[in-house]
Amino acid sequence: MPELRKDPISERWVIIASDRVRHPGDFVRHSVPNMRSDRICPFCPGHENKTPPELLAYRNGSPPNQPGWSLRVVPNKFPVLRVEGDLDREGDGLFDRMDGIGAHEMVIETSDHALSMTELSESSIEQVLWAFRERVCDLRNDPRLRYVMLFKNYGEAAGTQLEHTHSQLIALPVVPKRVQEEIEVARRYYDFKERCIFCDLIRQETKAGIRVVTETDQFVVVEPYAPRFPFETWILPRTHQSHFEDAGGSQLNNLAWVLKNTLRKLERVLERPPYNLLIHTAPLRDAACAHYHWHIEIIPKLTRVAGFEWGTGFYINPTPPEESARFLRDAGLG
Amino acid sequence: MPELRKDPISERWVIIASDRVRHPGDFVRHSVPNMRSDRICPFCPGHENKTPPELLAYRNGSPPNQPGWSLRVVPNKFPVLRVEGDLDREGDGLFDRMDGIGAHEMVIETSDHALSMTELSESSIEQVLWAFRERVCDLRNDPRLRYVMLFKNYGEAAGTQLEHTHSQLIALPVVPKRVQEEIEVARRYYDFKERCIFCDLIRQETKAGIRVVTETDQFVVVEPYAPRFPFETWILPRTHQSHFEDAGGSQLNNLAWVLKNTLRKLERVLERPPYNLLIHTAPLRDAACAHYHWHIEIIPKLTRVAGFEWGTGFYINPTPPEESARFLRDAGLG
Repeated sequence: MPELRKDPISERWVIIASDRVRHPGDFVRHSVPNMRSDRICPFCPGHENKTPPELLAYRNGSPPNQPGWSLRVVPNKFPVLRVEGDLDREGDGLFDRMDGIGAHEMVIETSDHALSMTELSESSIEQVLWAFRERVCDLRNDPRLRYVMLFKNYGEAAGTQLEHTHSQLIALPVVPKRVQEEIEVARRYYDFKERCIFCDLIRQETKAGIRVVTETDQFVVVEPYAPRFPFETWILPRTHQSHFEDAGGSQLNNLAWVLKNTLRKLERVLERPPYNLLIHTAPLRDAACAHYHWHIEIIPKLTRVAGFEWGTGFYINPTPPEESARFLRDAGLG
Repeated sequence: MPELRKDPISERWVIIASDRVRHPGDFVRHSVPNMRSDRICPFCPGHENKTPPELLAYRNGSPPNQPGWSLRVVPNKFPVLRVEGDLDREGDGLFDRMDGIGAHEMVIETSDHALSMTELSESSIEQVLWAFRERVCDLRNDPRLRYVMLFKNYGEAAGTQLEHTHSQLIALPVVPKRVQEEIEVARRYYDFKERCIFCDLIRQETKAGIRVVTETDQFVVVEPYAPRFPFETWILPRTHQSHFEDAGGSQLNNLAWVLKNTLRKLERVLERPPYNLLIHTAPLRDAACAHYHWHIEIIPKLTRVAGFEWGTGFYINPTPPEESARFLRDAGLG
């Protein structure tokens, strides 16, 4: 019997088409191919002049924009938003517009072209997380900006053309709609219960166990109750915290392990799927708050999104999260 | 300079990346291939026994489930929701669920396997619209159902495997999130202005003209001000009407022309793109209302949706709607 389930955080109903249960092997897969490295890569050492000048780099004493780094953050060469200028907000009858002010940055996660994120050492992944934090703290100083989206597209089907492992950051003068909705729902829940909805979710899920993938002392990895996509996976910090950039050293250290472990599990079960990874965090200008709780969402690209998903925000998911959680737990990676 | 624009109806901000303006020829195209018709098609005359028994058919005197029809509506053989049973709504802590009750039907638009929707006669398209109306009016009698989604996926990239031209209908015991949001926004606008936001939009757009594709005495075709996707196209009835199923004969007659004309324009400019077509209408159980206004949305599948679109509801569109409207107006089809 198919089931309708409602995600308490987005308040979105999804159909879990359990009659058509699909196992990991059934998905049309677009396994991400092995590295080619035959073309000149603008992210490789020695090609620093092929990117705009770096905004941040972790290097051992070498001068900026030269080899000798283990991580670089550079502006996107073809940014979707520009740093220079004013917002020039204006209306036109029903419509609202402003100039496309913001930032679009690339986090080059390692100097080694041959490695994917799951092949990075935990300390390299920890560096990536520190770089995210440093960039957000820097962008926070720009009063025009309201939100920083940190994300990673892995594989062509997930929207990237560049092989060399990287993440991205887009800083916006507005708060994206889905984030704003989540925050609204969380605020209403808090007003009603005086508890954080994410903290409640963590308590309920860790007690039930069936959708839990991994637990550490600092993080919980779960398949959400009403996922839009098969193997959609969330990583939630156990301690209540509204902003990612407030995460401390021991948290980022633990998160590096959790992230690597989770991505390796997905890789093993789904044979190196393309995926999108996103950090949901509270808006830049908001003070730390009791109602919102930052977290990571990972969405493997396994199914094609068809007609009415676009038009209605209504999703059909052929894999119950209890199934996908079991597959990931059984991946044999601790 | 890229621009940020806000859609007044979904309240969604999008980036119109006008620095990277992309013309129709620049899109990675997945032109829908010509009909193969070599496999046995369950939607062709003579194969009526390959579908569940028909719910509706337009035929010239022949008995049900036999050849001699020009349009058939049949249940989907692998429905995502079932008609039989009770909803059995229940909670589990934070979560809400119910049984997957609903309907999933296929509208076989013509008996001729070789035709696509743009090749159908206007009277055949009018028949399709009448069938939509009849099915909605029938499903309205089921008190468990709250919403009927009418949609069409054209081409494999848009989510269909079946060549034979068809539309679909999914009837739900809940109102989909994006529709509910639209209705909320429209209601707030009405409370404030005592005017329908869609009627205001039609007035403003027809006056400005730059985003208008076609106008008839009954319909307006526009490229929305803040489209998520290149060549996203809306068809709006000029007369205020909240429910599609309240459209009258002369409206459906005119809509058949408008729909064919619009799809042919998209086909000519974008070389037969895959697309999704959706009807947004008021919920089944709502009385006719002054604040909502049914309309059709057509979304050609031209770009890949990347990482943060999923996670944030934030879209980057490389084609300003003023450009796409100009291309469609210049398609030379009246």
